[in-house]
Amino acid sequence: MRIPILKLGRYLLISVQVELDDQTALQFQEDLLNKIHQEGSLGVVIDLTSVDMIDSFIAKVIGDVVEMSSLMGAKVVLTGIQPAVAITLIDMGVSLQEVQTALDLEQGLERLQQELGG
Amino acid sequence: MRIPILKLGRYLLISVQVELDDQTALQFQEDLLNKIHQEGSLGVVIDLTSVDMIDSFIAKVIGDVVEMSSLMGAKVVLTGIQPAVAITLIDMGVSLQEVQTALDLEQGLERLQQELGG
Repeated sequence: MRIPILKLGRYLLISVQVELDDQTALQFQEDLLNKIHQEGSLGVVIDLTSVDMIDSFIAKVIGDVVEMSSLMGAKVVLTGIQPAVAITLIDMGVSLQEVQTALDLEQGLERLQQELGG
Repeated sequence: MRIPILKLGRYLLISVQVELDDQTALQFQEDLLNKIHQEGSLGVVIDLTSVDMIDSFIAKVIGDVVEMSSLMGAKVVLTGIQPAVAITLIDMGVSLQEVQTALDLEQGLERLQQELGG
């Protein structure tokens, strides 16, 4: 199962609407980094609205994806983080200090456009 | 397998990145119409860039989805139609006279914004 990555100009949009098992999450990580490289993307919005909860492994993968994307020069905005997801991320010590968050996909995209000025 | 539907303001974005078997296509049709109703969407962009070919059943479902969405008041733009897909759609007599097309997701969205003025 692959999570689709949508290209919108210089941005990538992802809406996670499947259950994130370990394999899917790792595949997503690989796909996203490849896509950032391929498209020269400046920003990424990952919408987690449909994700009710995550385990510690998925929390780590999410943290990793954010850091890896930043290393590659793409700014990440996480949107629609639900309470249980926020709790697991913090409990697991995932460092999201530099990551921007927003309520939904639209606001995430606006946030990127403000930050990147386009 | 469900095809994720992304909500971006008053628009819905779909990028079909899985093989469209009959069940997936019908599920998508149902999901999209429900989502249009739920969100009061004005427009829909369906990106078929990753779809290499379709059979006659899928061609019919695509034609139906466009007509049904229009009936519900949402304008549909199809993007990234590959040669083999275009051939099947026309061969199957799918009436796409009223449907807008565009090269990619971004241009599809621009087309909607032009048409719907915002």
